[in-house]
Amino acid sequence: MKKGLLLVVSGPAGSGKSTVDSLLCAGGDFERSVSYTTRLPRAGEVNGRDYNFVSEAEFDKLEKEGALFESNCFCGYHYGSPRRRAEEVLASGRNFIMEIDVHGAMNMKKIYPEALLIMLLPPSYSEQEKRLRGRGTEPEEKILARLEQTKRELEFLPQYDYIVYNADGKIEAAAEEIRSIVRAEKQSVRRNPEAKDTYLAN
Amino acid sequence: MKKGLLLVVSGPAGSGKSTVDSLLCAGGDFERSVSYTTRLPRAGEVNGRDYNFVSEAEFDKLEKEGALFESNCFCGYHYGSPRRRAEEVLASGRNFIMEIDVHGAMNMKKIYPEALLIMLLPPSYSEQEKRLRGRGTEPEEKILARLEQTKRELEFLPQYDYIVYNADGKIEAAAEEIRSIVRAEKQSVRRNPEAKDTYLAN
Repeated sequence: MKKGLLLVVSGPAGSGKSTVDSLLCAGGDFERSVSYTTRLPRAGEVNGRDYNFVSEAEFDKLEKEGALFESNCFCGYHYGSPRRRAEEVLASGRNFIMEIDVHGAMNMKKIYPEALLIMLLPPSYSEQEKRLRGRGTEPEEKILARLEQTKRELEFLPQYDYIVYNADGKIEAAAEEIRSIVRAEKQSVRRNPEAKDTYLAN
Repeated sequence: MKKGLLLVVSGPAGSGKSTVDSLLCAGGDFERSVSYTTRLPRAGEVNGRDYNFVSEAEFDKLEKEGALFESNCFCGYHYGSPRRRAEEVLASGRNFIMEIDVHGAMNMKKIYPEALLIMLLPPSYSEQEKRLRGRGTEPEEKILARLEQTKRELEFLPQYDYIVYNADGKIEAAAEEIRSIVRAEKQSVRRNPEAKDTYLAN
């Protein structure tokens, strides 16, 4: 059984990353990371889907056991990403998706250098702008702030491994591109340092 | 139109690389490199398929025009690999396949660093041995020499980008893996240094 890959997927507002990730997870070969938090669930949030809601004591225990990749504190609440679950999923041959922003992605690259970093983008900046305005739910200044943020996020693009464009109505194509990337990466020489010895021994 | 990729495909005797490459070329997205030579065609060889057979004067002209990646002399005849044709094919968005041995591959990596190096292998060494014996056309010492050569060739595996296994009766799967690798590579950040600027400008 070949080990799965840990995918870090980032994408600006309007990139559709949660929809693409859901499509990947629906296929069964991918599982999405669910973070731990000590804060209380908000209306509509589901335990185990949006977050794993835990007590302070449980969080401490997870941290001490090494069950988290990293943890941080925000507004007095703890948040942590699930290393133990990631390792279980990867060992089973399935892939693990972490949907995180560029700063989190840079951090994961340090903590877990085998992580594969994918940037999901709308087809273009003007298309992204159209999508954000099309939502009709956000005030103009928030839309402009998100667009400005995208420019800052794109400065990190050279640290990513792959770019996938998510065109309108082609969300399945974007998911299929990610599947192709994962298939290809699993055949890469650098991810198979034992290939020569295995070949000769069999 | 996105530029095509130059694939260097190597594989030991019994890997089935010419069959896999033919399958890729049949799809139209790939074209196989045909070398130039000043030697005369042997029985059964077809001009433009096995080699481009040219005169000494034509060969000199190709070399002076920069139409060749490299050239060498063997038994008094010249051989050269087609750079100009490669560039035409890549510019059209199609991919160019060069079927060459590990030494030629190392050389291409220096001459054309964007080349993507793929090692095609039978599923295992014992399977390779079975295939070579199964041909029933070669004396035992030749089979053993080929197997020994494979061990030396595999020393170069760390310089390759991808490994593709060609299992019995699954030649289409091997070709599809190569197509996946090419699709993925075209989305890689290092092959798209202009991605950020293009995104923001559109």
